[in-house]
Amino acid sequence: MAIKVAILGGSGYTAVELMKILVRHPEVEVVAVTSRTEAGQPISKVHPVLAHRLEVVCEVFDADALLAKGVACAFGCLPHGVSAEVVGPLLDRGIKVIDLSADYRLKDAKSYAEWYGAEHHDPKNLAHAVYGLPEVYGDKVPGATLVANPGCYPQTAILGLAPLVANKLIRLDDIIIDSKSGVSGAGRTPKLATHFPECNENFAAYNVGKHRHTPEIEQVLSDIAASPVSVIFTPHLVPMDRGIFSTIYATPTKPVTEADLTALYMAHYAGRPFVRVRDTLPGTKDTAHTNFLDVCVKVVKGRIVVLACEDNLIRGASGVAVQNFNALFGFAETAGLW
Amino acid sequence: MAIKVAILGGSGYTAVELMKILVRHPEVEVVAVTSRTEAGQPISKVHPVLAHRLEVVCEVFDADALLAKGVACAFGCLPHGVSAEVVGPLLDRGIKVIDLSADYRLKDAKSYAEWYGAEHHDPKNLAHAVYGLPEVYGDKVPGATLVANPGCYPQTAILGLAPLVANKLIRLDDIIIDSKSGVSGAGRTPKLATHFPECNENFAAYNVGKHRHTPEIEQVLSDIAASPVSVIFTPHLVPMDRGIFSTIYATPTKPVTEADLTALYMAHYAGRPFVRVRDTLPGTKDTAHTNFLDVCVKVVKGRIVVLACEDNLIRGASGVAVQNFNALFGFAETAGLW
Amino acid sequence: MAIKVAILGGSGYTAVELMKILVRHPEVEVVAVTSRTEAGQPISKVHPVLAHRLEVVCEVFDADALLAKGVACAFGCLPHGVSAEVVGPLLDRGIKVIDLSADYRLKDAKSYAEWYGAEHHDPKNLAHAVYGLPEVYGDKVPGATLVANPGCYPQTAILGLAPLVANKLIRLDDIIIDSKSGVSGAGRTPKLATHFPECNENFAAYNVGKHRHTPEIEQVLSDIAASPVSVIFTPHLVPMDRGIFSTIYATPTKPVTEADLTALYMAHYAGRPFVRVRDTLPGTKDTAHTNFLDVCVKVVKGRIVVLACEDNLIRGASGVAVQNFNALFGFAETAGLW
Amino acid sequence: MAIKVAILGGSGYTAVELMKILVRHPEVEVVAVTSRTEAGQPISKVHPVLAHRLEVVCEVFDADALLAKGVACAFGCLPHGVSAEVVGPLLDRGIKVIDLSADYRLKDAKSYAEWYGAEHHDPKNLAHAVYGLPEVYGDKVPGATLVANPGCYPQTAILGLAPLVANKLIRLDDIIIDSKSGVSGAGRTPKLATHFPECNENFAAYNVGKHRHTPEIEQVLSDIAASPVSVIFTPHLVPMDRGIFSTIYATPTKPVTEADLTALYMAHYAGRPFVRVRDTLPGTKDTAHTNFLDVCVKVVKGRIVVLACEDNLIRGASGVAVQNFNALFGFAETAGLW
Repeated sequence: MAIKVAILGGSGYTAVELMKILVRHPEVEVVAVTSRTEAGQPISKVHPVLAHRLEVVCEVFDADALLAKGVACAFGCLPHGVSAEVVGPLLDRGIKVIDLSADYRLKDAKSYAEWYGAEHHDPKNLAHAVYGLPEVYGDKVPGATLVANPGCYPQTAILGLAPLVANKLIRLDDIIIDSKSGVSGAGRTPKLATHFPECNENFAAYNVGKHRHTPEIEQVLSDIAASPVSVIFTPHLVPMDRGIFSTIYATPTKPVTEADLTALYMAHYAGRPFVRVRDTLPGTKDTAHTNFLDVCVKVVKGRIVVLACEDNLIRGASGVAVQNFNALFGFAETAGLW
Repeated sequence: MAIKVAILGGSGYTAVELMKILVRHPEVEVVAVTSRTEAGQPISKVHPVLAHRLEVVCEVFDADALLAKGVACAFGCLPHGVSAEVVGPLLDRGIKVIDLSADYRLKDAKSYAEWYGAEHHDPKNLAHAVYGLPEVYGDKVPGATLVANPGCYPQTAILGLAPLVANKLIRLDDIIIDSKSGVSGAGRTPKLATHFPECNENFAAYNVGKHRHTPEIEQVLSDIAASPVSVIFTPHLVPMDRGIFSTIYATPTKPVTEADLTALYMAHYAGRPFVRVRDTLPGTKDTAHTNFLDVCVKVVKGRIVVLACEDNLIRGASGVAVQNFNALFGFAETAGLW
Repeated sequence: MAIKVAILGGSGYTAVELMKILVRHPEVEVVAVTSRTEAGQPISKVHPVLAHRLEVVCEVFDADALLAKGVACAFGCLPHGVSAEVVGPLLDRGIKVIDLSADYRLKDAKSYAEWYGAEHHDPKNLAHAVYGLPEVYGDKVPGATLVANPGCYPQTAILGLAPLVANKLIRLDDIIIDSKSGVSGAGRTPKLATHFPECNENFAAYNVGKHRHTPEIEQVLSDIAASPVSVIFTPHLVPMDRGIFSTIYATPTKPVTEADLTALYMAHYAGRPFVRVRDTLPGTKDTAHTNFLDVCVKVVKGRIVVLACEDNLIRGASGVAVQNFNALFGFAETAGLW
Repeated sequence: MAIKVAILGGSGYTAVELMKILVRHPEVEVVAVTSRTEAGQPISKVHPVLAHRLEVVCEVFDADALLAKGVACAFGCLPHGVSAEVVGPLLDRGIKVIDLSADYRLKDAKSYAEWYGAEHHDPKNLAHAVYGLPEVYGDKVPGATLVANPGCYPQTAILGLAPLVANKLIRLDDIIIDSKSGVSGAGRTPKLATHFPECNENFAAYNVGKHRHTPEIEQVLSDIAASPVSVIFTPHLVPMDRGIFSTIYATPTKPVTEADLTALYMAHYAGRPFVRVRDTLPGTKDTAHTNFLDVCVKVVKGRIVVLACEDNLIRGASGVAVQNFNALFGFAETAGLW
């Protein structure tokens, strides 16, 4: 019998991508979609791409109503800050939550306050939330009730560096992550910076030195290293819909070869269906509309250059959320994601 | 000595394109830029592309202040409705106006009210405004004090059809204009429809059967024909910054050949520097960042198919405005526009 | 037990889209991929997007080898002309063929010779090939051994006009089809016209009055009308990867209303999962990466304007091929296509 | 009287951009365009964007014919290797050459052979060629007879780092240049990698650790530093027509502040019309279709991050070539370039 799920915040891009995956998932039934702005609207009017595939009418969030519908799992596609207000009521009713916002990613509420500019609303549940990066914390997800779905940039950075950090091959204080993202990463709310004639035919950096994914990357890499990691992270906007590409520069602590590193990466990710270690340079298009993260490692003048890319909406958000869902409910890791 | 000019409404796309042309024009000095939202800001902060080329600080509109600065001509880049409020005060002070808004294009104030949803503010000046399409009304522009700069779509439609209409070669009640525009035509205000991830990798029609350029096209073609012309006009949005392409279908009143029609077009536009009659299919890119309008005429199964394209911001707005400026002040037609 | 299939001509865009669908289809196993140029290469090296999902090595076409592998159905993704050379040997061995080339679409071999510039290689099989447009010839597909998969443009034109033509609501000699396609429709072989800096930020018409899809559109519409239909078809290239949008102008034989026509379309396509009749204007993005064809009908000044769009690689080629496959082998129409 | 110039190799992108600038330049007459492949064709057929502006017929290269036409300066837009074959004959006839190829950039013929895979054809003239980067070698250009026009990537890297290197503020062995280029940088010859459906909606690195601009960057920076400089240079391809953006990471030798560095950059480039030092993050679009190079310097966790961008075809090639032309012939630096 299919697991009944709800989508919280159905109007945005991660929500629509999630629903496109879930209507194809053999073990899921989407029984509710919440949206403050679109309440009363069929979701297929909000996202015509869903017409003929999902006929649910948007409703205002109400934890009891979701429980009454038999919802066993809710996917949170709400903005940070808002998410932390609805998670508690759901967990209290025994509904598992996979939260795609940033609210439960940083384990340290002080760091959250510093980077997100507000106190954390729900420290109680923050304490037990599992950071849902299956290739790092895959053993912890199945038993979780609250999964903090990982950020889009961090996944390329973390999975791109994990084999090096886990094997203590690089200096932990000399890591540069130069990342590039398609525009959908900025969300669905119109702004001048994402107005077509502004960002089309344009390439620019933004939030240099102060992007909120910096502490998330450092937290997980430090955890893998069991030692503090510091990174310089520079995000850029690419005139394309989707895709994140990170070019990562790291300094080895001893001489390394490309062949050895490639072998190391292949061993590290053996058995992981969604990480593809390559010996050719990847491009975001190789991963577009899939849950794959492609990674390639090179050595240039003794420095390690890692190239990692993914679809920011699928692997970077909604796809990995379903990967977490599969782990939570005991389905095959690739169910619905092939 | 250079003519001193002002730009009214400096924050939008036609304004910035106009300024890029004017800083290159040998006979012009931009002495003022008005903007309600950007008053006090250097225009080079609003549009960094102008840095090192134009150092003017935006100011609130004040007709007397512009007069005091020696402004002889003002280019109106304001929204329709707003434009009609500032034109009168300028003309009263002897300042000529080239108005890029739609406010003075439709000769019939009733038609204006119907299509633009509001009474016309300034019927007095509407009466003497000259529709500034140089290849049609070029003899009237030099003596004008108020030039209604033509719309972007209408120019491709009108100049694409003028030789046929002027020579009574087609039925006037069976004209289809299927037009496609880059996104800059929608202006600089962010909206969902022009949000990058919505319109990138998308092609769609909009305002089918009710676009405001319809009566403008019909007015001018009827004037050329000296008989009422009715058109079906369908605009579409193309995922590119700039460019308008119109595919026009007309029914000849007697059999015609492609060779004869091409010769007719060449004769009709002989001596017109900015209309290029071609025997090869044009693309918008051939006209991008120029004031040229390219046109090609084909015959398919007895029907005439005209293909006309231009840069919507230059030829479609700011370039033709400078062409009108050159006519008003007696400069070479191509000054600043090559 | 899964049906074993082969892909003929695995290097192009329709092939890769087809394989992406088939690896997800619950009743299919891709056991062979042929390619002259890529023989010996794993298909996941040719198309890295397939890595981890399909591990087949490309081979040279050999009908006996395919039979030995148990292939029950072959999808032909070869160029026209080449396709007609391999179909016969496959049918002779009892392997069904869904041919995505143009070779078996035109029932009249003379018309084929005229439009494709060469005699037809295989008139014997042409005689019994079924034109695989499920919403028109759905009753004939299940019993076929050779399906001529329909062209991309023709599907939007035919399905956009079918309700009007079937109900004798329009003049059959006054139809204009103004179509716009993303660049993937031009195939994967590099050419100047599809070189990125040539077609990006460009919009242009091509093959005006002489595109090969014209007779295909006319053949099927004439069949539906049981009377000759003549169309003017103008294709254009849009700077985007995928998507076809057709704006169709037809002249009603008696007065019609938008509401009546919309109801007619809804009734005509009731029960058809992949045709979505809409009362809002569609955009190609609503159909991107899906097998849906969206259609909307408007009335402008008494003329009918139909807007129809699809993903040219899925609905326009590989998706409808799988729809035909499902019909051939008795699977649900939507299997693998949701 | 206008200087008569020739364009060598008129079919490519740098050639057409150059001609668009030169037809606007008040002191230049383009009297000849050479092209092996287009000989006999009017250049306005090769590049329709030039129609009505430049009516020259392409001819096969012949140094005597150019001399007979009064050519005083030739702009070489030929591929590397080919360029070195025509420069000698031109110089021998007293015709100055501004060479946009890579043939005369590397002072060391051995390094040329290593990076370009062939012996240098013309070491004699290589010896006296001046590297035409006006903001670095501006004093040497006026007296030159052969100017090696600088590469597109190198200009962003060199001008982005020059103030730091000249003032000995950074380690010379720890520089990372992460660069991103629009597709026009790859030239006009169709290839799979630049086929629209391959690179649109894609972001990828290429030539990691082995791009030919690496030694060019190191040569000039070493010259400025009077000490060997080593860089790691990673180029990427961005789905846009034009624009280069370089994100440069450097390690200061002593603590620095953003304010101090910005002031240093402003002082360093004071009086340079085409370098715009900014305190806001630049985007390539701010420089598109101009000869400006925008640069901004930030400090992140003690590391210096420089962001520099330009239009790769104008500032990166044809615009700086005209800047060099102006220096060679004593015109204002900005003539034709505003």
